[in-house]
Amino acid sequence: MASRLTVLKLGGSVITDKTKEFAPSTETIARIMKEISTTEVESLIIVHGGGSYGHPLAKLYRLSNGHTNQTQILGFARTRQAMMDLNKIILDSAIENHLPCISVQPSAFIRTRNRRIEDIDLRIVSGLMDLHMIPVMFGDVVLDMQLGFSILSGDQLASRLAIELGAKRMILAADVDGVFDSDPKTNPKAYLMERMTTQDAEALIEREKQDDRGSDVTGRMMGKIKEMLAAVEKGIQVVVLNGCVPGRISNALTGRRTIGTVIER
Amino acid sequence: MASRLTVLKLGGSVITDKTKEFAPSTETIARIMKEISTTEVESLIIVHGGGSYGHPLAKLYRLSNGHTNQTQILGFARTRQAMMDLNKIILDSAIENHLPCISVQPSAFIRTRNRRIEDIDLRIVSGLMDLHMIPVMFGDVVLDMQLGFSILSGDQLASRLAIELGAKRMILAADVDGVFDSDPKTNPKAYLMERMTTQDAEALIEREKQDDRGSDVTGRMMGKIKEMLAAVEKGIQVVVLNGCVPGRISNALTGRRTIGTVIER
Repeated sequence: MASRLTVLKLGGSVITDKTKEFAPSTETIARIMKEISTTEVESLIIVHGGGSYGHPLAKLYRLSNGHTNQTQILGFARTRQAMMDLNKIILDSAIENHLPCISVQPSAFIRTRNRRIEDIDLRIVSGLMDLHMIPVMFGDVVLDMQLGFSILSGDQLASRLAIELGAKRMILAADVDGVFDSDPKTNPKAYLMERMTTQDAEALIEREKQDDRGSDVTGRMMGKIKEMLAAVEKGIQVVVLNGCVPGRISNALTGRRTIGTVIER
Repeated sequence: MASRLTVLKLGGSVITDKTKEFAPSTETIARIMKEISTTEVESLIIVHGGGSYGHPLAKLYRLSNGHTNQTQILGFARTRQAMMDLNKIILDSAIENHLPCISVQPSAFIRTRNRRIEDIDLRIVSGLMDLHMIPVMFGDVVLDMQLGFSILSGDQLASRLAIELGAKRMILAADVDGVFDSDPKTNPKAYLMERMTTQDAEALIEREKQDDRGSDVTGRMMGKIKEMLAAVEKGIQVVVLNGCVPGRISNALTGRRTIGTVIER
């Protein structure tokens, strides 16, 4: 198996402007692709989120509830197509930077059961990597064996890929510097946790659960951390960093220290 | 199985201008999508060719030879991406016409062995049709278990889908009126064969093989017919027609008589 494999998850908030619909962050995307191309990383899978492409449509048609009415069918088609639009922008930029990136549409080979990946045949993904290609996947709307269809998040997919393929490292590029102990936007004393164990993460998730007010920043991050924990428990190092800041992704890809949070077993 | 299923193959020469690179026939595509939307056909799969998107790049990088050198890797990536570009144009037009079309990337779930489809898991394609969606597939560059990678033609894919899913009918939309007994461009006596059996088709293929000069029109068509014969032998009706002429695709989709060639067992 690919023990040198890195799974790089590019958050939707990094590659799109989530305050507007269908607004790609083209300069950031180009800069990240350039960064990746300079690292000459040996074995890589990229997974990207939906950002302002997938989310508004999925919400409009209530796709996360599963198949409940017939108007959703066109909504499913439109959401899929929006994800292809965003994926095309990423791929075009990758190829411009001579990265041998190959899109592999998740919904063409993955189904879920009650929102969790049911079966995943990774022979094609592995085969592409054997040829030194970089598979690119993304959060997608997929068939669900219980709900008709559901939304497969890029986080769930990235974590599962890392586990199944025995990745060395998973990099989670978000629009914040890493995991904070509280919301840095409202708490001036919030600090960035540079290192965390699964125990630390679980404690933080538990505290978040009991905090009625919640917080969007730590709240959104906790959902991601939960997905990552299964990978951490398998010995995969997870690095959460700010993909909007130049240099951090390439630092993490080459194993250099960078500002962010390292989560280890 | 879907005994009412129709597989519609849209030839690359119909949806693109093959004399120029990356030249979609946007008006024809829009007209065809509108035609499909008026027929209210119950169970449909669309497969499209590569035309001026896939072919020039595949030729430039000699992808049909399989994996022979490392520069092909970026060629593979670029060809895949070109197919996604064309597919996006088709899908955008489909969705504009309220057709619940869903792209299903062939290379994400199909591998070939020495250029022929090896294994094909159609649970997702069937699942989409169960939800009254229209799967859209296309000729693609795929992993090949002997050659590294190869080109999977839309014709091979359409024929295999029709067989595996027990289609009633396969419609082959080309840029000529059907199958002629000789090249209508050079032989003024060439006539359109309105009905053919598998025996007629095999005789024509045999004659073509012995004719040294060959002919581009009947030659290209014979390659397609060869792919279709396996489906015809399973009892699937194949209709070859001119997709550039308005009305013929919708006529064939609704089972009405139209100018073209009907091939039956």
